[in-house]
Amino acid sequence: MKLRFATHNKGKFMEAKAILEPIGITLEQYDKGYPEIQSTSLEDVATYAADFLKDKIESPFFLEDAGLFIDALKGFPGVYSAYVFASIGCEGILKLLEDCTERGAHFESVIAYIENEDVKIFKGRCKGKIAMEKRGNKGFGFDPIFIPNGSNKTFGEMEPEEKNVYSHRGKSIRKLAEYIVNGLA
Amino acid sequence: MKLRFATHNKGKFMEAKAILEPIGITLEQYDKGYPEIQSTSLEDVATYAADFLKDKIESPFFLEDAGLFIDALKGFPGVYSAYVFASIGCEGILKLLEDCTERGAHFESVIAYIENEDVKIFKGRCKGKIAMEKRGNKGFGFDPIFIPNGSNKTFGEMEPEEKNVYSHRGKSIRKLAEYIVNGLA
Repeated sequence: MKLRFATHNKGKFMEAKAILEPIGITLEQYDKGYPEIQSTSLEDVATYAADFLKDKIESPFFLEDAGLFIDALKGFPGVYSAYVFASIGCEGILKLLEDCTERGAHFESVIAYIENEDVKIFKGRCKGKIAMEKRGNKGFGFDPIFIPNGSNKTFGEMEPEEKNVYSHRGKSIRKLAEYIVNGLA
Repeated sequence: MKLRFATHNKGKFMEAKAILEPIGITLEQYDKGYPEIQSTSLEDVATYAADFLKDKIESPFFLEDAGLFIDALKGFPGVYSAYVFASIGCEGILKLLEDCTERGAHFESVIAYIENEDVKIFKGRCKGKIAMEKRGNKGFGFDPIFIPNGSNKTFGEMEPEEKNVYSHRGKSIRKLAEYIVNGLA
């Protein structure tokens, strides 16, 4: 089965591939982009984008929106994580949390999967904490400063396969895979 | 003449009113909202929103998008200023600029004005710097930490009329006013 993933992000694409290809799903990248609305809800962003892409990409396809939500910063950077990363980076987040002992945070992932005209939503969440310093150069974005619960490594110190065990995106993609496989069964 | 301003923000509405009412334009607030896309360009955000609202609001109407762009933070918080204000606030910006002597910043305002089917864009910019601490409780958002060039006060220490003399929004609204008045002449 061929499935399209609408994303610019090569890192996300590799993570999805690591889960989907072993179960016989061939992944193809669509990287022409789509509008992302400003909303505090990842689901709104994903649903709006899915609607926009419906008649532009051959079904089935999916897209994914994710964000890092930091407790002590009232959920910042949240849905704007990609932009915030591009401007103030990991360094900015570490600065905002200087002298802050409350370092709880979570990553969230929302997938919108489109089959014919139907949109289905799959979610994944990963709780953890913000590291005291950057560690590792794998992954992308805020990966080097996020330590998922159950590990001592940051996402930046993990290969895609290991990151997928813990990560928000690993969870949402496995839910998607389960749905596709069951639907085909 | 009656003109509609699509905004949730009462502060913006009052600033526009202070300029437009003295020249005979009655301002009406439309506060049902509109989608704001994630883009690093205020003009993209405003144009997309104008397009969305075209058949929902009686013409003529306008909307405005603004942002604070801080040099040392690569333009952060930019088009996401409202969201960033709601999460990390003025305190977060001051923290990010701690020990930073380069405090240059500017506010930008983009107005999309819709008359019948046409969209016209008006822009305003205000250069200045980020204060060392919060001052004043007037205005809204990052006003208490922004000092426009030519003044020693922050926007937070100014009434709408005084802020309009310096501000990005004062400039874009005066351009709009000029256009409307000349168009009607």
